[in-house]
Amino acid sequence: MREFDTIAAIATVLGEGGISIIRVSGEKSLDIVSSIFKGKKETGLNGIKTYTMRYGFIIEKETGDVLDEVIVTYMKAPRSFTAEDTVEINCHGGVISTQKVLEEVIKNGARIAEPGEFTKRAFLNGRIDLSQAEAVIDIIRAKTELSMKSAVQQSSGRVSKEINNIRGNLLEIIAHIEATVDYPEDDLEEMTSERVAVELGGILDKIKEILSTADEGKIIREGLNTVIVGKPNVGKSSLLNSLLMEKRAIVTDVPGTTRDVIEEYINIDGVPVKIIDTAGIRDTEDVVEKIGVEKSKEKINEADLIILMLDLSRELDEEDHEIIEYIEGKKYIILLNKSDLDGKINKESLNKLNPRYIIETSSKTGQGIDELKDCIKDLFFKGEVTSMDILITNTRHKEALIRAKENCIQALDALENTLAIDLASIDIRNAWSNLGEITGDTLGEDIIDKIFSEFCLGK
Amino acid sequence: MREFDTIAAIATVLGEGGISIIRVSGEKSLDIVSSIFKGKKETGLNGIKTYTMRYGFIIEKETGDVLDEVIVTYMKAPRSFTAEDTVEINCHGGVISTQKVLEEVIKNGARIAEPGEFTKRAFLNGRIDLSQAEAVIDIIRAKTELSMKSAVQQSSGRVSKEINNIRGNLLEIIAHIEATVDYPEDDLEEMTSERVAVELGGILDKIKEILSTADEGKIIREGLNTVIVGKPNVGKSSLLNSLLMEKRAIVTDVPGTTRDVIEEYINIDGVPVKIIDTAGIRDTEDVVEKIGVEKSKEKINEADLIILMLDLSRELDEEDHEIIEYIEGKKYIILLNKSDLDGKINKESLNKLNPRYIIETSSKTGQGIDELKDCIKDLFFKGEVTSMDILITNTRHKEALIRAKENCIQALDALENTLAIDLASIDIRNAWSNLGEITGDTLGEDIIDKIFSEFCLGK
Repeated sequence: MREFDTIAAIATVLGEGGISIIRVSGEKSLDIVSSIFKGKKETGLNGIKTYTMRYGFIIEKETGDVLDEVIVTYMKAPRSFTAEDTVEINCHGGVISTQKVLEEVIKNGARIAEPGEFTKRAFLNGRIDLSQAEAVIDIIRAKTELSMKSAVQQSSGRVSKEINNIRGNLLEIIAHIEATVDYPEDDLEEMTSERVAVELGGILDKIKEILSTADEGKIIREGLNTVIVGKPNVGKSSLLNSLLMEKRAIVTDVPGTTRDVIEEYINIDGVPVKIIDTAGIRDTEDVVEKIGVEKSKEKINEADLIILMLDLSRELDEEDHEIIEYIEGKKYIILLNKSDLDGKINKESLNKLNPRYIIETSSKTGQGIDELKDCIKDLFFKGEVTSMDILITNTRHKEALIRAKENCIQALDALENTLAIDLASIDIRNAWSNLGEITGDTLGEDIIDKIFSEFCLGK
Repeated sequence: MREFDTIAAIATVLGEGGISIIRVSGEKSLDIVSSIFKGKKETGLNGIKTYTMRYGFIIEKETGDVLDEVIVTYMKAPRSFTAEDTVEINCHGGVISTQKVLEEVIKNGARIAEPGEFTKRAFLNGRIDLSQAEAVIDIIRAKTELSMKSAVQQSSGRVSKEINNIRGNLLEIIAHIEATVDYPEDDLEEMTSERVAVELGGILDKIKEILSTADEGKIIREGLNTVIVGKPNVGKSSLLNSLLMEKRAIVTDVPGTTRDVIEEYINIDGVPVKIIDTAGIRDTEDVVEKIGVEKSKEKINEADLIILMLDLSRELDEEDHEIIEYIEGKKYIILLNKSDLDGKINKESLNKLNPRYIIETSSKTGQGIDELKDCIKDLFFKGEVTSMDILITNTRHKEALIRAKENCIQALDALENTLAIDLASIDIRNAWSNLGEITGDTLGEDIIDKIFSEFCLGK
């Protein structure tokens, strides 16, 4: 095990809660916490055994004041989250008291942990691999049960196991090729080429199979990025509220009420759909609203799906046409809102626009909301989204798999067209190396640092 | 100890954090968690000792799926927060995973805890008294170090100790009077009256001394309710940002940019000052802004201190005068903003308005900000606010002390004017009873329920 300094951070969400935890990890963790802990008895933390806890107080050394009533737990290396000596201080969950306790730990020799540093240590100490580490943060960020279960599976090593199997097979092929190259006989090389091609074909199929889960996986993990657009006062915020079944956005009769972009997740049969309500798009002189309109345009560019809202009770006007032009080429659904009023819109002309679906809705009566949800599901999930075999949810993993796939195709190509087994060997090595990025075996330190820096504080 | 059912709740703040805790308290807590826990070994939680922990997984009974990787801790009654058997499940701190684990605990026989129910049990089981229980929530809600330390002192029983001393003295007096009334002899009664009056005088002084800390105590606990008012675009939001030293409120040149009421705490030498930035007050046709103006007026009525902002570079107009009229009779400070521009305002006329202070400020250069902070402190804290003797921070405690004070005054009155020692006895009993409300000894169940219902969930 490597040697690191001792780090500390607040591991729970900071706010007004019942309990919060300060996690301290590293060789000196027990010494540091011991020095500011006062138990009921004189012993303090002396002789505390692993996986036990003690009740007492954290004391401000300078003043001798009691900072908080706490319970301290101790997990001796390597049986802890980081695989290092770890002490956790459970204190009353207030912002100030928690920060004061952390401050005191820092004053006595620990360093503030960087985001993701605890998990990074678990990785560097070899307790988990990189895809398991990434799953930890996915569990925390999971928006639905489905994404949580998929992350739990990944954290238990399901993805790593599949990847390691494939890498093992690739390594066997490489060894086989090397043996052939060392003792070159014409016959042997040809025979080997054929065998390698067959084996590599099997591996390619396996990679493709795993990759086929990636699109659904990404949506299950990150949600379907859906933006509601339409001109001011057409009913976008009311739609958001209907979908959420709560009053999230302020709704008034005044066009331009929504200025900030509002983002919320809804859960359609286990699939997280990230719904973004935007300021209505229009030319405006209002400075604040203008910023909002700019932001709306940004969101449209990033979207997986657009919900275009039109007012059924009016004819299309200049503003509508501008929006339609803006979203051309994107995947979109048209909602004809205010279906409870008389329809004036020319529906025929809408069909020419090539939307995926046209649905009539009424924010007042709730008509069309269920149909909208069905359409969203239909557009993105052809198969059974709840099938819980191995699932690639992470874009980084997907990209590594795509590169490995291409390596395999090139190797097969080399074998078939030129029988250049040594050329193929390079590609196979690359496939092996690319797949190793998923588990972190073949990644540079800088990239690993970058991955962990996106974790939350205290994990 | 009383018997209660087993309750459970998420004890940490829910959000994307490193760890969250589900707390389970009651006779069945260990059985319930055992039934959904799977450890590395077959033993599960069998034979777990108090103040120890085990690593494993929480399993969804119905499907057998792993819900999360957890560490379970066990605290046997009465050495736990609630003084009941308590099991805590530390899981990965995500919203969905935490909720799923709680759900599984509930499915297997626990009931969702009401807000404050864990602390209420600690009280009902006699581990802490009511003022200590209230201090627990004050620690969580503390806005500054000073309010935290005062709450920690209260939680350790400082307030209770003082109150119990006084109640003990009152009880001695009552016993003394009763002895006298049982064996009435003229001389004895007179002598007793005199002695009682002296003793009661001492108690009254003590109560007054404690009460004298209440005004500062309330501000230290709840913050000084300060509202910034002024017409649109005079620079209120810029002032808020200067005080906070961050960009909290959106500032533009457009009058009426702030619509929602923005509340923030700043910390002036350990005193939490709650600063409320309001929509500018003006007659407006804008529906959204109108709601904002109404809210501003409400906030003014509730304020301890008003900061009235005027534009130094312009003469007072109709709108300014309307605002000045509206805040008449409140304690207020006038800020003359935009001191970097030429002054046009008639300063003489302002003095007639009777503000506590007039300060020239500039949001641009930062001039006057420190002076403003000094004035706020000066207005509210005559003594040393950092003196940390017993401090009454709770309005409920203050009211009980005021009632007890009046009881003592009446009793003294009865003794001096009529020598009716039995009449005085009734008042002394009332004082004893009123003080008992602070520790919870003499409070009805309904009031106790109400106090705990204001706690946060999971505490």
